[in-house]
Amino acid sequence: MVMDSHRLFLSFLTAALAVGFVSVVFVLRWVLYFKEGLAWDGGLAEFNWHPVLVVTGFVFVQGIAIVVYRLPWTWKCSKMMMKFIHAGLNTLAFIMAAISLVAVFDFHNAQNIPNMYSLHSWVGLAAVILYGLQLLLGVCVYLLPITPVYLRVAIMPLHVYSGLFIFTIVIATSLMGITEKLIFGLKDPKYKDSPPEAIFVNVLGVLITVYGALILWLATRPSWQRPRELQHQTQHGCGDETAGSKVGTALSLLSNTNSDNPESGFDARKRNCKLDESGQRSTM
Amino acid sequence: MVMDSHRLFLSFLTAALAVGFVSVVFVLRWVLYFKEGLAWDGGLAEFNWHPVLVVTGFVFVQGIAIVVYRLPWTWKCSKMMMKFIHAGLNTLAFIMAAISLVAVFDFHNAQNIPNMYSLHSWVGLAAVILYGLQLLLGVCVYLLPITPVYLRVAIMPLHVYSGLFIFTIVIATSLMGITEKLIFGLKDPKYKDSPPEAIFVNVLGVLITVYGALILWLATRPSWQRPRELQHQTQHGCGDETAGSKVGTALSLLSNTNSDNPESGFDARKRNCKLDESGQRSTM
Repeated sequence: MVMDSHRLFLSFLTAALAVGFVSVVFVLRWVLYFKEGLAWDGGLAEFNWHPVLVVTGFVFVQGIAIVVYRLPWTWKCSKMMMKFIHAGLNTLAFIMAAISLVAVFDFHNAQNIPNMYSLHSWVGLAAVILYGLQLLLGVCVYLLPITPVYLRVAIMPLHVYSGLFIFTIVIATSLMGITEKLIFGLKDPKYKDSPPEAIFVNVLGVLITVYGALILWLATRPSWQRPRELQHQTQHGCGDETAGSKVGTALSLLSNTNSDNPESGFDARKRNCKLDESGQRSTM
Repeated sequence: MVMDSHRLFLSFLTAALAVGFVSVVFVLRWVLYFKEGLAWDGGLAEFNWHPVLVVTGFVFVQGIAIVVYRLPWTWKCSKMMMKFIHAGLNTLAFIMAAISLVAVFDFHNAQNIPNMYSLHSWVGLAAVILYGLQLLLGVCVYLLPITPVYLRVAIMPLHVYSGLFIFTIVIATSLMGITEKLIFGLKDPKYKDSPPEAIFVNVLGVLITVYGALILWLATRPSWQRPRELQHQTQHGCGDETAGSKVGTALSLLSNTNSDNPESGFDARKRNCKLDESGQRSTM
């Protein structure tokens, strides 16, 4: 049963990474094969950085950042190190999203196209701003050592919810962006005539949606959460078995495992993990 | 604290209902004031049934169906009755979504516009089919008395996840639909010139997104779940306090409450509700 759970996790993770990777390949093929390629010249090739950076950074990297705590082979790493990886990946995704905005504003200004008129632009800009605030709040609350524990606990449900919500609206905004670009970019034949580019990019939209569904599934299964006990581990890297054996019963259970037998990690988790009232683990 | 939780629930619920209601008003004003009104004539007025039925049924009614178990004043009603209300509201939403599809196919065929070429149509049709399957599976598993309990428990996490996921992609598809319609429907001035209709319908898109966010928040807070104990209640309607007092300690706690003092219902819930491994309650 535990073995099944571990295998199931790995299956979903593999599927998510595969679909995410294929999405990145698709967006690159779209701009390099069907469109004008990539450049920084105020023209369509500069605009093309917008979908490439959004799909690669704001969708794919953000998705990985969301599930990074759940990878069983990171459970012997310190919580602090995992927080830095989580924050680092989100910072990378934020920078890519910000550059993707610069590309599209620069293109619009060079071509005298108005900015911020579409629903896509409204929701998309809101998503980037909310993502920036989420990152700032996350660093202040969970990385600064001065933040009191009660505040960390109180904010965690909101942190988790808004993280998943922002990820979801990023994907919804991507689907709107694909719709806009296919209508504006396909003239002869038009979008409604279903040329190969239209079909190809529709498939990209479906892939992004499936990636989102897999990440949300991985991120919301309580049985795949990082074990609570490992939060007490004080080492600041990925510990060996000796280090792991020092932090009590639950960790001892895990320290009996090694990377060849990760099912036992799930076993320890299943035996020891408890959910608090909010259904989320506090992150201290 | 418990009182705060109840007030907070009511605040979020009120906000969700208000935003959902305003969304319905907005979509009606869009088609009746800015567009061609409503008719069933193969023209644009027939197409207009599509956004009206989607926003009213597939978004607003589905959202209410999702949170209906969480309304504290329904906790003295039998679980079976609440299941019928949940299934009934979802069936109503499904019928409205199906008619909205007929409207758009009928319009396309009458105007010789190809069907099913856009990402909006792909994801939207998938959402309607998945919603139909979800409804069918839900009725078979949770309303037919022959389904074994272990199956009901095993399927519940999938039922909850896919319900929320379908609701989310319905909203994402609505945003794509708004984008398409504003690009195709606004010619002089165009969408990029931000005429009043463009601003108005962008706001509708934002309202739908906010409604989705509120419903997802309401539906995923463990502390606002229907108390587990009431699942053992056997009456088939909304019981009075006498009926409610028969089913054990937890229900006794609740039977001490009345509708004027709903905080105590939250209190009973907080003291007695436990989450299973999946973080969801089984529904038997």
